[in-house]
Amino acid sequence: MAVVGEEVSNKQIILKEYVSGFPKESDMVVKNGTIRLKLPEDSKNAILVKNLYLSCDPYMRGRMRKLEERYVEPFTPGSPITGGGVARVLDSGHPNFKKGDLVWGRTGWEEYSVITEPESVFKIQNTDVPLSYYTGILGMPGMTAYVGFFEICSPKQGDYVFISAASGAVGQLVGQFAKLLGCYVVGSAGTKEKVDLLKNKFGFDEAFNYKEEKDLEAVLKRYFPNGIDIYFENVGGKMLDAVLVNMRLNGRIAVCGMISQYNLEQHEGVHNLFCLITKRVRMEGFLVFDYYHLYPKFIEMILPRIKEGKITYVEDVAEGLESAPAALIGLFSGRNVGKQVVVVACE
Amino acid sequence: MAVVGEEVSNKQIILKEYVSGFPKESDMVVKNGTIRLKLPEDSKNAILVKNLYLSCDPYMRGRMRKLEERYVEPFTPGSPITGGGVARVLDSGHPNFKKGDLVWGRTGWEEYSVITEPESVFKIQNTDVPLSYYTGILGMPGMTAYVGFFEICSPKQGDYVFISAASGAVGQLVGQFAKLLGCYVVGSAGTKEKVDLLKNKFGFDEAFNYKEEKDLEAVLKRYFPNGIDIYFENVGGKMLDAVLVNMRLNGRIAVCGMISQYNLEQHEGVHNLFCLITKRVRMEGFLVFDYYHLYPKFIEMILPRIKEGKITYVEDVAEGLESAPAALIGLFSGRNVGKQVVVVACE
Repeated sequence: MAVVGEEVSNKQIILKEYVSGFPKESDMVVKNGTIRLKLPEDSKNAILVKNLYLSCDPYMRGRMRKLEERYVEPFTPGSPITGGGVARVLDSGHPNFKKGDLVWGRTGWEEYSVITEPESVFKIQNTDVPLSYYTGILGMPGMTAYVGFFEICSPKQGDYVFISAASGAVGQLVGQFAKLLGCYVVGSAGTKEKVDLLKNKFGFDEAFNYKEEKDLEAVLKRYFPNGIDIYFENVGGKMLDAVLVNMRLNGRIAVCGMISQYNLEQHEGVHNLFCLITKRVRMEGFLVFDYYHLYPKFIEMILPRIKEGKITYVEDVAEGLESAPAALIGLFSGRNVGKQVVVVACE
Repeated sequence: MAVVGEEVSNKQIILKEYVSGFPKESDMVVKNGTIRLKLPEDSKNAILVKNLYLSCDPYMRGRMRKLEERYVEPFTPGSPITGGGVARVLDSGHPNFKKGDLVWGRTGWEEYSVITEPESVFKIQNTDVPLSYYTGILGMPGMTAYVGFFEICSPKQGDYVFISAASGAVGQLVGQFAKLLGCYVVGSAGTKEKVDLLKNKFGFDEAFNYKEEKDLEAVLKRYFPNGIDIYFENVGGKMLDAVLVNMRLNGRIAVCGMISQYNLEQHEGVHNLFCLITKRVRMEGFLVFDYYHLYPKFIEMILPRIKEGKITYVEDVAEGLESAPAALIGLFSGRNVGKQVVVVACE
């Protein structure tokens, strides 16, 4: 147990330099630092936290690149990676937080962090669920699924819904939301294990392994003979092209992510955009950050459904801060099964 | 003057066979037929018309291809081209039309046509404007501009608006609508003459010749240092890619057409769709056919503005049915300046 005021070791995951192409574990390094477990006197508004869980998210790839579209700032080479996490407050100079509070939001990839802008973290009110859920189903990915599906896709009962990267942190929830609404839901994923999860655990109507399909257009035609009303886009590239020709009249595409493209220096060309016209399709990009005012409404919807077992969530948990670089890299090869979390500490 | 019942010659423009690649005049042929200027007794609901003006429209390229996305049916090789036009009713078996009526809508590329489904034509109520306007500003292209801009783009005063193929049948109107609303408007076109038209006749704030620009991204950045709120997409391909990186937060793209792509066997790849996410852009395809219920509202808006000189319209008029194939082909090399019309007869 850490004692306030004590100087303790503080392992950190440092980004060495900006990355081009496929990121590697060796782009990051573990650094052994120290930290004094008390905020300096002049740290008004800051909080000092002990990190419990860290979140590995695809958008973080963009932050490893200097000149990425600046919707999130790049990481600082030589400094710890930052990202979503769950933490316990050890010391607080902010009126909204006190010692012992549990919070989720932007923290550092290290054992202890000083969060200078705690406006970017939320106090955890409900602790009768696994705390790690605040990196996933109850955190940014959960909100992403909720906002993307309900606010962007204009879904209705009976819609034909397709989700790519469907077993991931976001996709597994979109599919379950769509099933609860009474949609027909098909997902794609990259292993047999994930396909089985989609069908057997998340209740998708159908699922397929895109890596085993030579002709994505044809497989989508097989699962959607009448076309796709809603496509929840997580991957981009060839899958998007195959979806476009299979869209149904007045279809909607929520563009959440394009993970298949993040490690390419130039994204693949998408050739079938003319289908937007012929099928009168609306394709809309969104970022969850614009919708956090809906978080209370989201929690009100999802918490009872988690407790009643109507919505489930699969996490892939890596043990220890040292495992974080491999866990993050694994997202881009699809090694993770479900939401990728890193446990840093248990209390 | 044609006499009812008389048998007269009826020149027709026939599509020889389906076309791949860039269409040529020789893909069409003039055929000298005859027609009796009276509907047969059993022609219930049909009308017989004398064609006055024919419309050349980019979407017709898709109808020259057998396997095009079927949002309009393909032409029938060996039969006359069909398309928009203005015509006078010579004989009618339909209760809504009588001899002497002027109509606009789907007719044949020939001197006289029997229209078996007159539901696809509108009676012309206002004749104190040039009749040819019903192939353009008061017809399908005018409605396309109106619907695309006001229904799809969610425009508001002060928006930064970019229009490609801006001097064309649709683009010149979108720009004028945007100016009337108080937007900042820039257009692209393919000749100096067209660029001058945009700035001097249609009142665009700026215009440029895309053929003289090596770096479309840079030229758009120059004209839109704060980004583009609304892109009215008529061309597709490289221009779309350059626009995507220049979109402003929460921008809208109305996808009306992609004329730069229509003669390619595979459309060019678009690489910058990730910007839909980072800029939270909505990109929406539409077809005017879904919005004809708004035609009366459109006429009410536009007719007084035409008469007051607040909206102007430039037509490129080809004389004689024989000139129609070259006029149609000319759309794809950008030979036309403004709306391409063919005059078949004057009364």
